[in-house]
Amino acid sequence: MNSQPPAPPAHPAEPVRRTGGRSARVCAAVHRAVTELIAENGAEQVTIPAVAARAGVNPTSVYRRWGDLNGLLADVASTRLAPDDPPPDTGTLRTDLLQWAERTRAAVTTPEARALLRHSIGQLATCPGTTPRMAAREQQLATILTRAEDRGEPTPALTQAVDHLMAPLYFRVILNLGPVDPADTRRLVDDLLHHHTGRCPT
Amino acid sequence: MNSQPPAPPAHPAEPVRRTGGRSARVCAAVHRAVTELIAENGAEQVTIPAVAARAGVNPTSVYRRWGDLNGLLADVASTRLAPDDPPPDTGTLRTDLLQWAERTRAAVTTPEARALLRHSIGQLATCPGTTPRMAAREQQLATILTRAEDRGEPTPALTQAVDHLMAPLYFRVILNLGPVDPADTRRLVDDLLHHHTGRCPT
Repeated sequence: MNSQPPAPPAHPAEPVRRTGGRSARVCAAVHRAVTELIAENGAEQVTIPAVAARAGVNPTSVYRRWGDLNGLLADVASTRLAPDDPPPDTGTLRTDLLQWAERTRAAVTTPEARALLRHSIGQLATCPGTTPRMAAREQQLATILTRAEDRGEPTPALTQAVDHLMAPLYFRVILNLGPVDPADTRRLVDDLLHHHTGRCPT
Repeated sequence: MNSQPPAPPAHPAEPVRRTGGRSARVCAAVHRAVTELIAENGAEQVTIPAVAARAGVNPTSVYRRWGDLNGLLADVASTRLAPDDPPPDTGTLRTDLLQWAERTRAAVTTPEARALLRHSIGQLATCPGTTPRMAAREQQLATILTRAEDRGEPTPALTQAVDHLMAPLYFRVILNLGPVDPADTRRLVDDLLHHHTGRCPT
């Protein structure tokens, strides 16, 4: 998973622009530094000077772009935890759900993702509301179900898919209830289709 | 929101004992102060001096008994979120599960419980492991299922009860996915029994 960090940029004091090659490289280096430090020491030990040192950038650049540590962690969480591709569209509900569940499982079970997820839930204690990447995952699920319904497939409701597929997957990760492996997600998808499409088990 | 703090105790420097009337009163006052302050301002704004002032006790007593703020919050979380009575034992699985689910729902959906739950998950970012009150709730569920099995009732596995009853209930609370009402928990119990006891829906 982790590649070697790139060499520090030649001019760390150069102003950071919002777009463009150098700016994107700084952003990527800072995000990578955050996830590495979280994986090593936990989110509570991360500081902006430590992140800047690891990324090889000037701390001032980090403060200017992200404001404070919570802003930086929120940005990293929304980038790392949000789906980075469109929802699967294979032509059948079962295959779409299996791919969605496996991608979600793989994305949220790395040590960095677990730590970011828990940290962002801790932040919710003072800033209530659904976290954006959850909303994005739920939106993907909604798209998959709507397409299946349009094709005329027996389709569970979104509430059922959230309660019986998304919830158990995240619950195990958030509360550290042991590993979540591909077989678990397959079983959840099969149970969802088996029990919530109005068909009697055969 | 803010009520006047009660008058300070007559002898704030009196040693705090682990048991007994005065010690229990101090403990209850401090716990109440923590939950009130969390409900008003969120867990991140709570400080030991603020808690002590609200509870009308000397901050030294709080530091001596709980060590630091995380120790205090962890104690309050484990007291407030743990089940405070034995699991229901009504003689039928469905009624036991309905009572367990409704008690759990009622316990974890107050604003203080939501905030404590999210805060303790945020702490997990650095201290992995199942939180004790989750383990206690899961243990209650296990007891209910074992009794039903001993009576010869068709009974879902513990994994199924955790995935399809406990997980959706907590997931909605933890991620703030809107209200969770008694009708939701009844539907989850009915679905669990309907789908995971080897009986075809009738």
